[in-house]
Amino acid sequence: MLLLKNVYLGGKTQDILIEHNCFKKIADEINDDNADIKDCTGKAILPSFCNMHTHAAMMFLKGIGEDLELFDWLQTKIWPLEAKLTGEDVYHLSKFAALEMIKTGTTMFLDMYFYVEETIKAIDEMGLRAVITYLGMDMFDEAETKRRLENAEKFMKQSVPSTRIIKGLSAHAVYTASKELIQGFKKIARAHDAFFSIHVSETKKEVEDCLKKYGKTPLALLDEWGVLDEKTIVAHAVHLTKEETDIAKKRKIVLAHNPVSNLKLNSGQMPLQAYLDKGLRVTLGTDGVSSNNSLSMIDEMKTAALSGKNIASDSTAAKVNDIFNMATINGFEALGVKTGKIEEGYEADFMLVDLNNHTLLPNINLISNMVYAADSSCITDVFCQGKPLMKNKCVENEDNIVLNFKKTCEELLKD
Amino acid sequence: MLLLKNVYLGGKTQDILIEHNCFKKIADEINDDNADIKDCTGKAILPSFCNMHTHAAMMFLKGIGEDLELFDWLQTKIWPLEAKLTGEDVYHLSKFAALEMIKTGTTMFLDMYFYVEETIKAIDEMGLRAVITYLGMDMFDEAETKRRLENAEKFMKQSVPSTRIIKGLSAHAVYTASKELIQGFKKIARAHDAFFSIHVSETKKEVEDCLKKYGKTPLALLDEWGVLDEKTIVAHAVHLTKEETDIAKKRKIVLAHNPVSNLKLNSGQMPLQAYLDKGLRVTLGTDGVSSNNSLSMIDEMKTAALSGKNIASDSTAAKVNDIFNMATINGFEALGVKTGKIEEGYEADFMLVDLNNHTLLPNINLISNMVYAADSSCITDVFCQGKPLMKNKCVENEDNIVLNFKKTCEELLKD
Repeated sequence: MLLLKNVYLGGKTQDILIEHNCFKKIADEINDDNADIKDCTGKAILPSFCNMHTHAAMMFLKGIGEDLELFDWLQTKIWPLEAKLTGEDVYHLSKFAALEMIKTGTTMFLDMYFYVEETIKAIDEMGLRAVITYLGMDMFDEAETKRRLENAEKFMKQSVPSTRIIKGLSAHAVYTASKELIQGFKKIARAHDAFFSIHVSETKKEVEDCLKKYGKTPLALLDEWGVLDEKTIVAHAVHLTKEETDIAKKRKIVLAHNPVSNLKLNSGQMPLQAYLDKGLRVTLGTDGVSSNNSLSMIDEMKTAALSGKNIASDSTAAKVNDIFNMATINGFEALGVKTGKIEEGYEADFMLVDLNNHTLLPNINLISNMVYAADSSCITDVFCQGKPLMKNKCVENEDNIVLNFKKTCEELLKD
Repeated sequence: MLLLKNVYLGGKTQDILIEHNCFKKIADEINDDNADIKDCTGKAILPSFCNMHTHAAMMFLKGIGEDLELFDWLQTKIWPLEAKLTGEDVYHLSKFAALEMIKTGTTMFLDMYFYVEETIKAIDEMGLRAVITYLGMDMFDEAETKRRLENAEKFMKQSVPSTRIIKGLSAHAVYTASKELIQGFKKIARAHDAFFSIHVSETKKEVEDCLKKYGKTPLALLDEWGVLDEKTIVAHAVHLTKEETDIAKKRKIVLAHNPVSNLKLNSGQMPLQAYLDKGLRVTLGTDGVSSNNSLSMIDEMKTAALSGKNIASDSTAAKVNDIFNMATINGFEALGVKTGKIEEGYEADFMLVDLNNHTLLPNINLISNMVYAADSSCITDVFCQGKPLMKNKCVENEDNIVLNFKKTCEELLKD
């Protein structure tokens, strides 16, 4: 049992008792001789973040090939470097990605990349929660479709090392994956009651090409293929048609908004407020660092708010509480995890922030400060399932993780 | 004399000797028995930031009235609270603003607010450089014009406590200040070889109203009034006409770009790359915290880059080096201060950043990391004119500054 004393929550100082990974009791004063006591004077408790779309191991590509055209960037920079990756590389890259996420207050993420076993090992060791998806992409080659489907089956049958790790499947996109692969992956996911994720309508070109090839826009096509439901997480969804927003609502799919990546790659801006007004399930993600270049959900919230106001031409759009919810509770809810709120009965994923940090003063509106003013310097402690991932700004084994990460990058990037 | 040992600069580790406020010598190895030695192993040196447009003492308004319409926000929230301000309040608010600027790597800013004497005192004590401008705004009332002009004259004749403090004048905007005030202020500024700043074309409404009232758009009007030259700093300049960009180039005026504020208040987006391509002098500012809500130039750079790509519909626009220059050398140059570069002969305004900080790894492109990935957690030391403002994350008297700031906010915000 852990007892947080004098922690700022809901405009006042309270005590919080954590037992069996959950917030057991929240009250003005709690005393319990059996609990370990953590003095939280001067600190506020907030839900930790849930990053709904990323490619954690892309960490070695941060800052590579800035300011290029998307296709140029992929062909000349990203793909050749990714081709060199080994499983061991992905392990070390994922560990460092987890370190950055912890430092910036994230305790859960949905990942889409290669070498899933190594990612699972790394993330389990770091103590975060994650949905790790095996990624399908066949470039319309039948042999590859078959191989991927077999691998997906195999992956879904493997055991996971802890309840924090959830397996899932993803398909890259309608321009890189065949109908057979996408339908096959969703079928396997359904058989295991697992999440399925896919990039949809990230760019106008994707939408136009899809319309040419299939006579339908991407989300409408995926609906025709029967792969949309409340366990489908659609990344980007920048350019949905009116018909497609109706589909998104009807099928209760989850949207993962990545405003920084969308702006950096000039993909466009999601009409966030329109989606929120329609009652769509919008969550937030950072995408990979190569197009961000950060895994910080704090940065992402600020851009989501600013972009949301800009695309709506309305300074009252993309309100701070909506943005904060997108970064926290909306994601956890979508992934079926009961956390993202500091309330009795919720699982204890949370962060402590220093109320005397320069970014959080004055403390007039803590949520607005988190969305617009904060940075990682204000986060002192991060907990997942009631267990500390960062204590007083220190993560266990941090130096070693950094060292191995640097070595891995050096090897991958030499010549 | 101060000798920085083993500091990362230009892709390698070097030593830097600082004497008489300047970088005297930069070499692979320097030894000097007379110098104080600072071991900078694992740290990089970068120029500090120059924030070209802010209202420092608005710090107490951070998070007040989020997500409102601009006019509603001003009338119901900002103006009534500002009316309560005293000189002592501005002193404490400015000290805390300076603290935030130091923590986020800024050593110079251009300020536009009330109670200039108290701001000067606060900033001088904190050790930063600033152009503190006396603000003119007469709402077309002749008595007020006269009073403001007299005050401006008086202010420009006062002495300043140090070479770090530069006096200047500013007029609010063409919709709040008369031709007489604007021309009068610029005349006084010219007589003292001082800088003159003014908000121009921040919103479409301002441009339309000006066109209706004067038959000209704001910058064209100011040109007709003869107040534009290389010592005129124009804040915002979001909606310039083609003719006005020609004027901006011809008159060599300085533009202070405030992308966060422009997005948050839904004012629009400056076509940054078009201005850069035309050779306009573009610098960067945060505006006041009430519309940002941060004085961090790091945050501002990321938004400038993302917004710059978005408005140009071009992922190759708003390149990282251009953005970094806007935040550093461009501003210092505009204000006639020889710093903003880590080169022999330049004045020693700089920051040290921890290359093992999670935001700066991997160190493939340090400038890209600063623009897109960094936050204030990576900054360990900040120097202005060769003197430390922050050493190992600590600013002298920090607790006291925070305490007085909190007290001031409490007083101002109690109904």
